[in-house]
Amino acid sequence: MSSSGPQRIALIGLGTIGMSMAALHLSREQNIVDVFDTRPDFEDYLSKTLPIYLNQPPSFDSELSSSPQPMSLVKLLVSSGRLRIHSSLETACASATIVQEQGPENPDWKQSLWAQVEAIAPPSAHLWTSTSGIAASIQQAQMRDKTRLLVVHPFNPPHIMPLLEIVPAPETLPAHVEFAHEYFSMPGSRHRPVTVRKEIPGFVGNRLAFALLREACYLVQEDVVGAKDLDTILMASLGPRWAGNGVFESYQQGGGEGGIRAFMEKLGGTMQTVWDGQGRVNVLGDEGTEWKEKVITQVDQAYGTMSADQIHEKEARLKDFVRVQTQRYPPDGRET
Amino acid sequence: MSSSGPQRIALIGLGTIGMSMAALHLSREQNIVDVFDTRPDFEDYLSKTLPIYLNQPPSFDSELSSSPQPMSLVKLLVSSGRLRIHSSLETACASATIVQEQGPENPDWKQSLWAQVEAIAPPSAHLWTSTSGIAASIQQAQMRDKTRLLVVHPFNPPHIMPLLEIVPAPETLPAHVEFAHEYFSMPGSRHRPVTVRKEIPGFVGNRLAFALLREACYLVQEDVVGAKDLDTILMASLGPRWAGNGVFESYQQGGGEGGIRAFMEKLGGTMQTVWDGQGRVNVLGDEGTEWKEKVITQVDQAYGTMSADQIHEKEARLKDFVRVQTQRYPPDGRET
Repeated sequence: MSSSGPQRIALIGLGTIGMSMAALHLSREQNIVDVFDTRPDFEDYLSKTLPIYLNQPPSFDSELSSSPQPMSLVKLLVSSGRLRIHSSLETACASATIVQEQGPENPDWKQSLWAQVEAIAPPSAHLWTSTSGIAASIQQAQMRDKTRLLVVHPFNPPHIMPLLEIVPAPETLPAHVEFAHEYFSMPGSRHRPVTVRKEIPGFVGNRLAFALLREACYLVQEDVVGAKDLDTILMASLGPRWAGNGVFESYQQGGGEGGIRAFMEKLGGTMQTVWDGQGRVNVLGDEGTEWKEKVITQVDQAYGTMSADQIHEKEARLKDFVRVQTQRYPPDGRET
Repeated sequence: MSSSGPQRIALIGLGTIGMSMAALHLSREQNIVDVFDTRPDFEDYLSKTLPIYLNQPPSFDSELSSSPQPMSLVKLLVSSGRLRIHSSLETACASATIVQEQGPENPDWKQSLWAQVEAIAPPSAHLWTSTSGIAASIQQAQMRDKTRLLVVHPFNPPHIMPLLEIVPAPETLPAHVEFAHEYFSMPGSRHRPVTVRKEIPGFVGNRLAFALLREACYLVQEDVVGAKDLDTILMASLGPRWAGNGVFESYQQGGGEGGIRAFMEKLGGTMQTVWDGQGRVNVLGDEGTEWKEKVITQVDQAYGTMSADQIHEKEARLKDFVRVQTQRYPPDGRET
């Protein structure tokens, strides 16, 4: 089946990522979304939470759950047949063209899930895991057919964030990779799927983020800069730069006519000195973890516990920057 | 003298950064800017180049240099006395309240410059170096008074990019640090100065950028992802995220009610695995440098040599993202 036609998506696990994924899939009017979660109050929770992702209202408050308007949106979707709420995995997957899981980050749970899904979903269904850390080649251990499963790793929240990292296992068939790529990049989509060629811990996005984070934690530990000032430095320089241009592209530009080669010749000395002196803090283990309390304390002091309103304001920021990016600078000239 | 009053700024070295700095200082109507550069065609070069930074036209082309309109802008600034072109360091610095250098990144050159400036500039003048790599404590070696010099490290191009890293030497007086901080953060400024507490190679911004770059080069070398796809991953996730929110702030949010502590508990395993497996590529030396030709080739293939139009388009992108940031989300509620 072509990725551009209507899909029937079975979503397994409707936490934060799952809700956002449901909103993403429901934004395509021909899709039918089957949802399944084991929480006892699932239907009630879905009715309260999904409208927040579907509406993206300019502001929301704790009274939202008692407001009749958003409740009716879920009812409307259910009565039209576009959203189907299930109490069993079997019925959720029975007619799926895509099965996508956002369950616990636990290899045993995922291996068991996919073995069950294989027995109940149509043999043509595409199988996607939203995992941030467990490779498809591990998750498929108990499956007979190891050609269908692949990682579709979203960045939070996926209904706003453009990136999806598609990471096949060595045995995944290219046709399944292409299908996922096409589904997320079809005309009208703000999303930007990228295929990662090898399974590697953290895939690409989180490896880049964690590399920067490690140095950030080291600089706070060494009292070079406070946590809030470090955030300001990032927002006032690399953030807007990398929102518009990639890191390689920026240095190609920075090197002038000689490009990134000239840049590395000119800045190579400083770069190597920085690389030789990079912080080697650790988050687990016995050594190099003394930075943790200092960083946590400074971050708590700077930002406190974020309220729902604050989190919504931060997502609105993200949406603003993504809008500039996708509307004014569509990838490869693609209209959005 | 208060930083909010009119300043007379002697700019030494008018390359790319110097021109952009001149535009920044001239954007404040009460300032007088004295410029000095040793290139033989300096006045002609300034007349052709400065208008590009002052006007930021929607597009420019190679005919700009023969257009009479931008030429007259520099003439107008000169005839009004706001821009003064000098053929000697002595006259450029004679009446300065601020002396700022963007000369060669060479310790000997900078040490010699500051010894000369100390002899000819008013003793109250603030002394700023735009260096990206040579600490103030090294640059001041030949000075008698070591309390005035500090690094004001801009990100390219400074007339657009908000960040200025202010990095004093241990002997720099706090009053000079405060003056620079106030000058760049006065009402109406889009700039965001941050004081870095210790001299460290690369300061903070480039240390963060180079940490991410090192992992990026490793991932390309290992064929996990191509250079252009890596750029797409960055632009489609971390770029817009960090344009709106810092790295610590994002993980505080990502951890939900438990903040960054909960985030590190939940993702700590993946994070440590990524940190343990980080790439250790080198840009100088005999080992770990085999990635260079692969990265350079892929970056050249993806982007080629950038034309003036392309560079201008990229700066326009940056300006767009900075505009969203500073107009809609001013730091600490400051109006811009």
